Amino acid sequence: MSVAQEKFVAISGGVGGAKLCLGLANVLTADEVAFIVNTGDDFEHLGLHISPDLDTLMYTLSGLSNRETGWGRQHETWNFIGALKQFGGETWFNLGDKDLATHISRTQGLKAGATLTEVTAALARQVGIEHAILPMSDDPVRTVVHTDTGSLAFQHYFVRDRCEPAVTGFEFSGGANARLTPEIRQWIEDPELAGVIICPSNPFVSIDPILAVTEFADWLRSTSLPVVAVSPIVAGRAIKGPSAKMMEELGIPTAADAVAHHYRDIIDGFVIDQQDAGLADRLAALGLETTVAQTVMVTLIDRVELAEATVEFLRRLRREK
Amino acid sequence: MSVAQEKFVAISGGVGGAKLCLGLANVLTADEVAFIVNTGDDFEHLGLHISPDLDTLMYTLSGLSNRETGWGRQHETWNFIGALKQFGGETWFNLGDKDLATHISRTQGLKAGATLTEVTAALARQVGIEHAILPMSDDPVRTVVHTDTGSLAFQHYFVRDRCEPAVTGFEFSGGANARLTPEIRQWIEDPELAGVIICPSNPFVSIDPILAVTEFADWLRSTSLPVVAVSPIVAGRAIKGPSAKMMEELGIPTAADAVAHHYRDIIDGFVIDQQDAGLADRLAALGLETTVAQTVMVTLIDRVELAEATVEFLRRLRREK
Repeated sequence: MSVAQEKFVAISGGVGGAKLCLGLANVLTADEVAFIVNTGDDFEHLGLHISPDLDTLMYTLSGLSNRETGWGRQHETWNFIGALKQFGGETWFNLGDKDLATHISRTQGLKAGATLTEVTAALARQVGIEHAILPMSDDPVRTVVHTDTGSLAFQHYFVRDRCEPAVTGFEFSGGANARLTPEIRQWIEDPELAGVIICPSNPFVSIDPILAVTEFADWLRSTSLPVVAVSPIVAGRAIKGPSAKMMEELGIPTAADAVAHHYRDIIDGFVIDQQDAGLADRLAALGLETTVAQTVMVTLIDRVELAEATVEFLRRLRREK
Repeated sequence: MSVAQEKFVAISGGVGGAKLCLGLANVLTADEVAFIVNTGDDFEHLGLHISPDLDTLMYTLSGLSNRETGWGRQHETWNFIGALKQFGGETWFNLGDKDLATHISRTQGLKAGATLTEVTAALARQVGIEHAILPMSDDPVRTVVHTDTGSLAFQHYFVRDRCEPAVTGFEFSGGANARLTPEIRQWIEDPELAGVIICPSNPFVSIDPILAVTEFADWLRSTSLPVVAVSPIVAGRAIKGPSAKMMEELGIPTAADAVAHHYRDIIDGFVIDQQDAGLADRLAALGLETTVAQTVMVTLIDRVELAEATVEFLRRLRREK
């Protein structure tokens, strides 16, 4: 008789989330954890299908990522984009020469009729990744950022306009019709599934697009399994990216507990940084369990320790449920 | 009263032909010469539209070409193709990082509805080329190489299989239906047109595909203007590429006059190298005028001098007609 295995799914956006995913991939096997990744940032550019968050996770898990920028590949060169500039092409979205191989391979695979999930799996396998990197849907969902100067496609807001316009809201075009993939369904319907982790990604433009996939959000709201989020806000500041700036613009206090409040319908517990230990009472008032950890991940050990603390937290919540 | 201008068109394939085109572009203005280029080598690869001969001419005329290889760009890097290999992609056709910008720009332009002629003109303008680089047709014509081991798409024969299979014949799929472009029509119907140059390109896979465009071949056969070809064979050897090997396999003597014989229906004159001066009698027997020049082009001066000699030859033939 085999001992029942404990499985987990982690939902993640790009850089910040990928750090925790790397920690999780170091403490859980490919049978024990899968990553469900935001594709709301995906876009067609120069005829290529670009999936920034899938790529960031693939590069992070395979050790190919540029550790300084957090995105893109290490030892990258930029001769393609330089030549494109010479031809008067669109160069606001920087594409490295090596990175381009990912986009061209993906686009080719999709054109040949493979799903985004299948293409992602094939690419990840080629660079030695065993863990499943699962696009949140094979159907297109596109994040639109409403700003005080008009609505912008996500990459136009994020990259071209460097997050400068003040946000007023978000829309996830296609979300309501986006279906759950068979691959995600298999994980969330697995009787051995023991909990869900929301990685410390931007709540508005990394996690919310995933929650815009109605079937997934419905499952998350109704599951009896513990769901925990790791705060992307530490001591009132975003570790990375525009989370805090967005919260200010949306009139939300830039504090970890405001993120917990944002997730209040779906989470049972919240992981806060040591610097925010004082927020435990406020979180309790939201009906949430709390665990305190070092959520600022600088080294690989930081990633692994946060992963261990988060999984341990889920186990505790499950025992208590 | 303005003096009537003399205009010329040169028809060309890749490396060898492009050398003479560069010479012509140095002795004739953009109003005086246009280049009609083989697109039978074009192919779809990795989702991109690749036009090797158009690119070779564009890189040659703009000074961007790799002078050692004759194809591709100078100061090229190969990080894309290395990464593609890592992903298990098709790497038999080498694509440089800078070169890729050309293919992506072209593919994007075609997808947006521009013709190949328009896309080619836009790219050439961006790298400072004033002369017209005119694809032989905007409709697809694809060279198929029949060999003793079966039929091969041109690039499979030429690049993947390194011209190793013995050729038995050629086919220019789509040629019969390919229309003349308005841009070429404008040049060939220009009352100031004074002659046609067939560049020293491979007769079978660079020039014959252009002649497979029925409307163009019909015009070339019926025009009263002088048409001259520059021999790609010197002293029984091809200056570049598989011309001589193909001639052997097809049972054609590998001599300059055999090329003249191949073109006998369309040309009035033939430019041979000093080393082949002894062939003048045989060419006269074919009813052809001959001029002797240095056709082996090593330096830019060689290119310019051969261009001058060829244009002078056309002028002489026109006076004599």
